[in-house]
Amino acid sequence: MKLGSLKSPHSRDGELCVVSKDLKTAVKATQIAPNLREALEHWKDKESALQKLYTDLNAGTAKDSFLVNESEFHSAMPRTWLFADGSAFIHHIKLVRMARKAPLPETLETVPLMYQGECGQFLAPTEDIPQRDFSHGTDFEGEVGVITDFVPMGITPEEALKKIRLLVLINDVSLRGLIPEELAQGFGFFQSKPASALSPFTVTPDELGTSYQNGRINLPLTVNYNGEFFGKANAGAMHFHFGQLIAHAAKTRNLAAGSIIGSGTVSNDVQGAGSSCLAEKRMIEQIETGSIKTPFMKAGDTIEMEMLDEKGHSIFGRIFQKVKAV
Amino acid sequence: MKLGSLKSPHSRDGELCVVSKDLKTAVKATQIAPNLREALEHWKDKESALQKLYTDLNAGTAKDSFLVNESEFHSAMPRTWLFADGSAFIHHIKLVRMARKAPLPETLETVPLMYQGECGQFLAPTEDIPQRDFSHGTDFEGEVGVITDFVPMGITPEEALKKIRLLVLINDVSLRGLIPEELAQGFGFFQSKPASALSPFTVTPDELGTSYQNGRINLPLTVNYNGEFFGKANAGAMHFHFGQLIAHAAKTRNLAAGSIIGSGTVSNDVQGAGSSCLAEKRMIEQIETGSIKTPFMKAGDTIEMEMLDEKGHSIFGRIFQKVKAV
Repeated sequence: MKLGSLKSPHSRDGELCVVSKDLKTAVKATQIAPNLREALEHWKDKESALQKLYTDLNAGTAKDSFLVNESEFHSAMPRTWLFADGSAFIHHIKLVRMARKAPLPETLETVPLMYQGECGQFLAPTEDIPQRDFSHGTDFEGEVGVITDFVPMGITPEEALKKIRLLVLINDVSLRGLIPEELAQGFGFFQSKPASALSPFTVTPDELGTSYQNGRINLPLTVNYNGEFFGKANAGAMHFHFGQLIAHAAKTRNLAAGSIIGSGTVSNDVQGAGSSCLAEKRMIEQIETGSIKTPFMKAGDTIEMEMLDEKGHSIFGRIFQKVKAV
Repeated sequence: MKLGSLKSPHSRDGELCVVSKDLKTAVKATQIAPNLREALEHWKDKESALQKLYTDLNAGTAKDSFLVNESEFHSAMPRTWLFADGSAFIHHIKLVRMARKAPLPETLETVPLMYQGECGQFLAPTEDIPQRDFSHGTDFEGEVGVITDFVPMGITPEEALKKIRLLVLINDVSLRGLIPEELAQGFGFFQSKPASALSPFTVTPDELGTSYQNGRINLPLTVNYNGEFFGKANAGAMHFHFGQLIAHAAKTRNLAAGSIIGSGTVSNDVQGAGSSCLAEKRMIEQIETGSIKTPFMKAGDTIEMEMLDEKGHSIFGRIFQKVKAV
């Protein structure tokens, strides 16, 4: 099933919609739950009614369905209680740490890296990325993520896999210019991780068929920058799968229903895969040519992210954002 | 005005109550707003009705008022969109960094330290602190905090002072045993900062009279550990005031209405003030005697926090928590 949140002047959570498999039509599901956040909080009671509506919508028999205009949709989950962002692609960590001249963590392959990101106000998938200062070093990070049910503290990675309710794409906006100073302070990221955007639609794992297996999405994430190819790294290359990331997040706390766990920038050590963030491309330039050519984002630059299924159809809709000076 | 959130089987947000100045009686305000979170999202429209109810309650004329049993109240704000915790007491930073053998940040006096804490599920003020493993080094941190209106990105510290709607106490639970490894990873705190608790009641700044001035609460925070005096450090000794902390948090993002900004552990460089967390007491023992005597919390240990006004009356009600092995 595919779900989205129609923008609403009345609620920051948006209005829950069921969206057709081909993303062409949608129908409000607010009679089942007013918004996705509340649907997830009562998932056991809501799932079958949502699934029934999805079946009807795909069959063309859902009442009051309408044509999808993606710009009318907010991020699939406009706000939630936790966005815990991992860094599960070790190839990316290696390159970025080289770029920051920072040592690799000793626990690189055994303990996930994770920080807590802004979750109270995601940008919409077509909303401008605000830039207060070019020196902040605005960057995108193409990621995949999961949205969980309630997760009890101390869960195992295997049990955690069963708590994954939905999959989503994330543009984790990062301000690279602020990272060195923040990390030198010792408390981790804060100002360097402003509001991110999610894809307009979120889907249950069964929508991916065999492309979703054991907490990994085995499909490339298409990233276009200023209208040109930038990356198509396969999201299945996560060193830690989502069950492991969820278990890491839940080691000392329960996770509220609707928590979002991010993969970190999708990254492959494969010729031609490109990158999912500027920082990685810059580091590769440094290694290959001895100097960095690609600047960080300036006002007007656009970033597009999408994931296509094996038949070339968009699964989650499209993130398409422009940087805007504010 | 004083507000609280009655525990409810129907909502994780609790039911909004107005509480009398002496904390003896309360009345549900759910006809004004179902919960504090939603009241803050529409504060301009809700404040005067809440204030009117508060006046009636204090006059003994509010209909359906009831006697307060603090154990029936959740944390004043049971969940919210952001808990950004600062570290505004520089005396504490100096001692804790010495304890961790970590260098002092170069920007100690110019840039606040801040991390993002768990905000989706606060513990209730009398709820047990779960302890999965004694080696996690469970500690309390007595803090003061503010709850904000919507705050636009880029706000100045002076303008930010005007966005403070409510004041609250916080027991910021910390797992000291997990901090060194997490900080060595470079992404900051995550597992080492599990769910915290707030005081049962939150109050508008005018409730503190002249004890609240320019973003600082000039009153001691009473901390008792296992029933004995532990600290009475004055919360007014913040190096950065709350306007500065809010502006720091909002440098690159808007803050949702209902965001909580914490002061960090209240700490005074004053003989007899004691401490507001075990880590600080341990460090003082190390400095004064060459060895640490005080262990971190074990199952059964209790922590109590309260702030009294100049006449000795409790302002926010009492945080009283026991550690429980889980």
